[in-house]
Amino acid sequence: MRHPTIIWKGDESGHCELIDQTLLPGRLEYVEIRDKEAMWDAIKRLAVRGAPAIGVAAGFGVVLGMQEFRGDGGAAFRKHLEAVADYLATSRPTAVNLFWALDRMKARDAREAARPVAERRRALHEEAQAILAEDRETCDLLGRHGADLVMPGDVLLTHCNAGALATGGSGTALSVMFEARNRGIDFEVFVDETRPLLQGARLTAWELMAAEIPATLICDNMAPWAMKRRGVSRIFVGADRVAANGDAANKIGTYGVAVAAKAHGIPFYVVAPSSTFDLSLKTGDEIPIEEREAAEITEGFGPRTAPADCRVWSPAFDVTPAELIAGIVTEKGLISPVNRAEVARILGA
Amino acid sequence: MRHPTIIWKGDESGHCELIDQTLLPGRLEYVEIRDKEAMWDAIKRLAVRGAPAIGVAAGFGVVLGMQEFRGDGGAAFRKHLEAVADYLATSRPTAVNLFWALDRMKARDAREAARPVAERRRALHEEAQAILAEDRETCDLLGRHGADLVMPGDVLLTHCNAGALATGGSGTALSVMFEARNRGIDFEVFVDETRPLLQGARLTAWELMAAEIPATLICDNMAPWAMKRRGVSRIFVGADRVAANGDAANKIGTYGVAVAAKAHGIPFYVVAPSSTFDLSLKTGDEIPIEEREAAEITEGFGPRTAPADCRVWSPAFDVTPAELIAGIVTEKGLISPVNRAEVARILGA
Repeated sequence: MRHPTIIWKGDESGHCELIDQTLLPGRLEYVEIRDKEAMWDAIKRLAVRGAPAIGVAAGFGVVLGMQEFRGDGGAAFRKHLEAVADYLATSRPTAVNLFWALDRMKARDAREAARPVAERRRALHEEAQAILAEDRETCDLLGRHGADLVMPGDVLLTHCNAGALATGGSGTALSVMFEARNRGIDFEVFVDETRPLLQGARLTAWELMAAEIPATLICDNMAPWAMKRRGVSRIFVGADRVAANGDAANKIGTYGVAVAAKAHGIPFYVVAPSSTFDLSLKTGDEIPIEEREAAEITEGFGPRTAPADCRVWSPAFDVTPAELIAGIVTEKGLISPVNRAEVARILGA
Repeated sequence: MRHPTIIWKGDESGHCELIDQTLLPGRLEYVEIRDKEAMWDAIKRLAVRGAPAIGVAAGFGVVLGMQEFRGDGGAAFRKHLEAVADYLATSRPTAVNLFWALDRMKARDAREAARPVAERRRALHEEAQAILAEDRETCDLLGRHGADLVMPGDVLLTHCNAGALATGGSGTALSVMFEARNRGIDFEVFVDETRPLLQGARLTAWELMAAEIPATLICDNMAPWAMKRRGVSRIFVGADRVAANGDAANKIGTYGVAVAAKAHGIPFYVVAPSSTFDLSLKTGDEIPIEEREAAEITEGFGPRTAPADCRVWSPAFDVTPAELIAGIVTEKGLISPVNRAEVARILGA
């Protein structure tokens, strides 16, 4: 990868560097993240975003948080770790990869509990690096499974950014497109700009253009019309949390795309690693939905574009019910039809 | 009206003044329109927009165009009039009120063809004023017929701006809300911001707040989620052209709202004067759809928010098929069900 989304410099005493995605596509800049507060902030303000990338960031955030541990003794180390994890968990509520990664870091430490503090620090760094490395492999597998679904002449549509920028690797939904392109399949992509923060316009268009995939930017409200008049034939999106029955939370607007896809008979696919599944939730109704600041809508571009004191509702995610999803592409294979039994079967849960 | 959208100052030698809607909600400023070129430009750049208001603007545009006539003799006057009308007709292709108003001005002049040039100028001014006056009356009638459909506790949703700013009077879809409010009916409204030019955020939110109607601004892609989670119970939108079978062109995104409304069992109403119907078109497939500049999407707010050279598709309108429309409110009554026979019956065509 020419521009990895997130990397770690050095050993367990090192630091994290990540692309500040709020500056794209105008500027490609890495920001140094040297403590857990900076990582919390980077996640909160969407300098790093996308469920898998947030998971990787959380792992490195724990490593940074443990660098400040000055006590000695295993119990104090564990207590500090729990506090670091609890703190990072408050950054964003919807993407389950955040909690999955924090749990994984804690589980690793539990296995190392008998060892000296220095070794436990090293183990946590190793675990965070493993999360990143596995995410890269997983992205490639998602691409390979998903590309089997792409047909020559397809007109694809995607929403938000489920690309390399959303992961530690080649992406989820966009990994499918990168792999289809590698296979020489001829297709084009409509890209929803994805209000309010324009991840589609700023990030997805940028990634697809860099990969020389024909991409056409549209406003979100043009997607149903593109389905009707421009022959959209297949839709691929990512996910932030998938419930046990296959209901999938993703960036706000995904639900509307799925509803319109159903009305037009267009297959709608979710592409997500198994780490994005939360099998403790029976349905998507239980997924907590983050609400964001009004200013992202009313002055997201600088000048204010709504009346002063205008009331705003800004859910960051919505939930697409399983019955609108033709299939969920995971690194373990394709879940289709999407229901509780097939989710359990493919994930081996 | 405290701030009429468009007015004429003086007699047939006077000039037009209209609110420059591109400056709202930040600044409420009138711009003086003193020749046909300035009117063409005002329509083109959406300083004045909304199908009925464009019709009124076109009428006044003809009056301005005829002020420059320096010849004498009826035939030369008529030739100049035709040229002015042809010129103004090129400003925007979709809203039929533009062509309707130009035809009406030409028909009036045809009736005055035997009279001296000075009187024909006066007659054209009279006709343009009549278009404005009738639009005001029509808006009030739309409000009264439409308000019969609003129930206490309703959660309404609207797209783009179909308010006073879109007409010479109190609006189309928003006139319904203003009248429902006058009747003391308790309801609230979700307002789609309406990308790319944010007529919902800039204009509709401003009008509803001024009328003290509880309004909540959302991004367009949140509308389906508001239907599912926030109890949207009824939808009112305007139209730019309605075909003989009831298919209705309106601001891009309207079609997606209608598709989602259908999926949620929510009645979707179009509010439009009879001047917005184009009975020469059998279906909406024949309605020409304006495409707009990429920059409105990629740098609409100042800073560029998409990669350089990004391909963009920007249809300004879409067409909602009659089968997704529960009813069309006209000044002559409610068309419901929406089909060719009912359109003809209510319009008396």
